[in-house]
Amino acid sequence: MKISEVSAQSGARVSAVKFYIREHLVPEGERRGPNQTEYGESHVQRVRLVRALIETGGLSISAVRDVLAVLDANESLAYTFEAAQRAMNAPETKNGASASARQRVSDLLHGSGWHSTADNPGLELAARALDGLSTIGFEPSESYLLAYADAASIVARADLAALGTRTQPELVAELMVVGTVMGDALSAGLRRLAQQHETATAFPVADDREGNDGA
Amino acid sequence: MKISEVSAQSGARVSAVKFYIREHLVPEGERRGPNQTEYGESHVQRVRLVRALIETGGLSISAVRDVLAVLDANESLAYTFEAAQRAMNAPETKNGASASARQRVSDLLHGSGWHSTADNPGLELAARALDGLSTIGFEPSESYLLAYADAASIVARADLAALGTRTQPELVAELMVVGTVMGDALSAGLRRLAQQHETATAFPVADDREGNDGA
Repeated sequence: MKISEVSAQSGARVSAVKFYIREHLVPEGERRGPNQTEYGESHVQRVRLVRALIETGGLSISAVRDVLAVLDANESLAYTFEAAQRAMNAPETKNGASASARQRVSDLLHGSGWHSTADNPGLELAARALDGLSTIGFEPSESYLLAYADAASIVARADLAALGTRTQPELVAELMVVGTVMGDALSAGLRRLAQQHETATAFPVADDREGNDGA
Repeated sequence: MKISEVSAQSGARVSAVKFYIREHLVPEGERRGPNQTEYGESHVQRVRLVRALIETGGLSISAVRDVLAVLDANESLAYTFEAAQRAMNAPETKNGASASARQRVSDLLHGSGWHSTADNPGLELAARALDGLSTIGFEPSESYLLAYADAASIVARADLAALGTRTQPELVAELMVVGTVMGDALSAGLRRLAQQHETATAFPVADDREGNDGA
């Protein structure tokens, strides 16, 4: 198919498809003549994946490139998973999490009996979240953290069960990586829906959305 | 204190603090003379918050501005929460989620007995995540979605319980908003840690991190 067809089928503009190709996020088509390049279904799928990683997953172009490189390298599953996790969490900040926040997360892991390595990027991310909460003077209680850990376990087990439905190693690796990114978005979306439900139950308000009880 | 002191205490560079002030994310200091502007502890806290929203929460400058505007407006709690959720989820994509993905999320909500409005941005975000998964041919099972919904409920209840520890309305609103952003990061971080634990348990591998069973 032509590039315009890849655009139509993937929902991305032709200029975006060309940009992805130039940035090596999507492979080049096959030259069939001076003015004809042929693309296939795999190009459409790859463009869709790149868009989802960028628009829904919030990944930068360079993070997408790292994630795809890991996927395309066809390494062992354990290696793929670790490398992709690192690629997706490339620290974009100079200052890391505070030592006390990292310790708090470590203690939580220890208490939950989780086996994880010190270089798991989740430790830094969770610790930075605690630092972010402390900027508004909120120091989470033990039960708050345990609830988040519980929820993370439930989701991680569902992720793992989903991997079991795929048999080819490269498809398992693909789901590991893409599922990690999309699962974050799915969790975030459902959390907002659950929050609205719980908040409406706990703080019932009048229908007046324009209401203002401020000064 | 001087701006250099705000920088030192918040960990942000002086140039970043000036940028935040210019972008109206942090209020200006108090002019005390032609070459002297006085800043206070509230400036340090605000700089820390802005950095956390950007660096850990992944918000854009304009999303941070929207979130802060909502916080500073001192509206009713229900309004603050909804407006902040919308501000944080400003769609950065032209094409929305597919109708089938939105339907699948709606069915999940209905099945879980959740009360939420159609304009809750979580619906779009969750549906886009399903679309992202479908780019790699993964259609989540019912049990996968229910696990994610379960986890979201647990987290939302913990969020709500945390709000109950604050009595002043503006502090509740602040935690609602900042907690929503940081909670996503906390969930994502703990999920990676839980995944490593679950994966290591299910797919035990040799210690050889450099191992490659690919071609």
